[in-house]
Amino acid sequence: MTVPGLPMVVPEAGLPARVRIHEVGPRDGLQNEPRTVPTEVKAEFIRRLADAGLTTIEATSFVHPKWVPQLADAEQLFPLVAEVPADLPVLVPNERGLDRALALGARRVAVFASATESFAKANLNRTADEALAMFEPVVTRAKDTGAHVRGYVSMCFGDPWEGAVPLEQVVRVCRALVDMGCDELSLGDTIGVATPGHVTALLTALNEAGVATARLGVHFHDTYGQALANTLAALRHGVTTVDASAGGLGGCPYAKSATGNLATEDLVWMLHGLGIDTGVDLGRLTATSVWMASRLGRPSPSRTVRALSHQE
Amino acid sequence: MTVPGLPMVVPEAGLPARVRIHEVGPRDGLQNEPRTVPTEVKAEFIRRLADAGLTTIEATSFVHPKWVPQLADAEQLFPLVAEVPADLPVLVPNERGLDRALALGARRVAVFASATESFAKANLNRTADEALAMFEPVVTRAKDTGAHVRGYVSMCFGDPWEGAVPLEQVVRVCRALVDMGCDELSLGDTIGVATPGHVTALLTALNEAGVATARLGVHFHDTYGQALANTLAALRHGVTTVDASAGGLGGCPYAKSATGNLATEDLVWMLHGLGIDTGVDLGRLTATSVWMASRLGRPSPSRTVRALSHQE
Repeated sequence: MTVPGLPMVVPEAGLPARVRIHEVGPRDGLQNEPRTVPTEVKAEFIRRLADAGLTTIEATSFVHPKWVPQLADAEQLFPLVAEVPADLPVLVPNERGLDRALALGARRVAVFASATESFAKANLNRTADEALAMFEPVVTRAKDTGAHVRGYVSMCFGDPWEGAVPLEQVVRVCRALVDMGCDELSLGDTIGVATPGHVTALLTALNEAGVATARLGVHFHDTYGQALANTLAALRHGVTTVDASAGGLGGCPYAKSATGNLATEDLVWMLHGLGIDTGVDLGRLTATSVWMASRLGRPSPSRTVRALSHQE
Repeated sequence: MTVPGLPMVVPEAGLPARVRIHEVGPRDGLQNEPRTVPTEVKAEFIRRLADAGLTTIEATSFVHPKWVPQLADAEQLFPLVAEVPADLPVLVPNERGLDRALALGARRVAVFASATESFAKANLNRTADEALAMFEPVVTRAKDTGAHVRGYVSMCFGDPWEGAVPLEQVVRVCRALVDMGCDELSLGDTIGVATPGHVTALLTALNEAGVATARLGVHFHDTYGQALANTLAALRHGVTTVDASAGGLGGCPYAKSATGNLATEDLVWMLHGLGIDTGVDLGRLTATSVWMASRLGRPSPSRTVRALSHQE
């Protein structure tokens, strides 16, 4: 249901004028997809996202194909989208992955650390410090080539094994990533349990540890419906980089139709209502998510996509 | 997935210490339900909601059964729940409905006005002013009996026919309801299009027109995923009455699995994370919504219910 003039644009004092959306749909959104998505469909997805105005589109991951079979076609995909007019960061877990990415001309890479021992063990089979040690040469070499490096930090707010994560534990990992040269951090609420006061407290603690807000992005999951409220808290703190996934792609492992990632469309609806510039055309973006949903064979979990498309 | 210690409690400055949740599930949540829900199931739903700690539970509606067949059993239901330890407001559209409600001992009633002409016409077959004129004797008589009167105002932010709704139009209707004696107003974002700056602007405009924040409740729909972010904006403005529907009951007419109302569980997750007292036991509330979902034969759209129950 598209109604001209909606959302009504009413700015709120103290919020940024512009937000850069870091679109993670093609990577984070698809990585757990059980059926193999054809490489050409992924490339078309990325092209359409750029057409919709997204300027940062995380394209794929150069992890070992054994760990993420869905993204095993990174070498085939990346050349197909090289001409897309957007920044196309890629995940690199180690030096081998970095080599593969750089060989294809990647100019933005991302490493993925964990704020908790349990998740470092589960995701990387290392202690948190071992994982940081693994990333250090990756970041150094990437920076030496002039690449932009993002550091993901998972489980910044809660962890399914450890519960609430102490702020100082997150700060320590973030500080280490900045010290090794990361240009930007993405603070992940991997299980979606954060609430707005917790977001503000973590951002404040990071500032106090010398990590500037300009270096911080937020990556919220909507598992408990909190992602957009948490985003609002981050915007109030001055954050201008927000991760989101077109159509809300990227489900929880235990709930097929529940969302994992904050849906880009729901984010754009709020930002545009607040008069915050994103450069995104919401109609085109929604059409892209509807198209992708048809390729995946199930409806988008994004509420805005459903409302605008009558998709059911 | 229940994890002890989550959400982590981190208060945020400037928010209220306590919020009263006005639970609308049994009325707003069920009113469009196509299959008739047995009266005893409705009564049990209300009892379980009270057991979960909700203190205001909108029980039913004394509209003409022709308009809302699902709530045609109001006369049978109300006596079944009379002993439930909670306030049980009921909708009354006119003097006939008020008579029926008062005869059964209702002590809290609600009238429902519209901020737009289009919705007044569609919902009440009257102009907005004719609807107000219809409510005036209802409110006066209810107040004379000592009842508490809530005034719902629909379409406070956007209207599917008229688009964005000017603030002054909402203020005029709110002012009229307060002048005729309403104790409390509920500002409805009936189609879920509001964003946080718009919420703040409307609350400010109402204050400037002499309507105190203490008299204002908010009623957000999650059609575009904005309900909780909008609630956060309202809390920052000082609002302490928030409408929500257990399990997110009350769907959009055009999207069966999309939510209409803000889910009480998603709201409680945020409020408890912020250290705001609600009196609600989230585990019991979730169990109630899972039980009700089993009665209705489809999963709850609340993300928190899904996450906590693995319901799919």
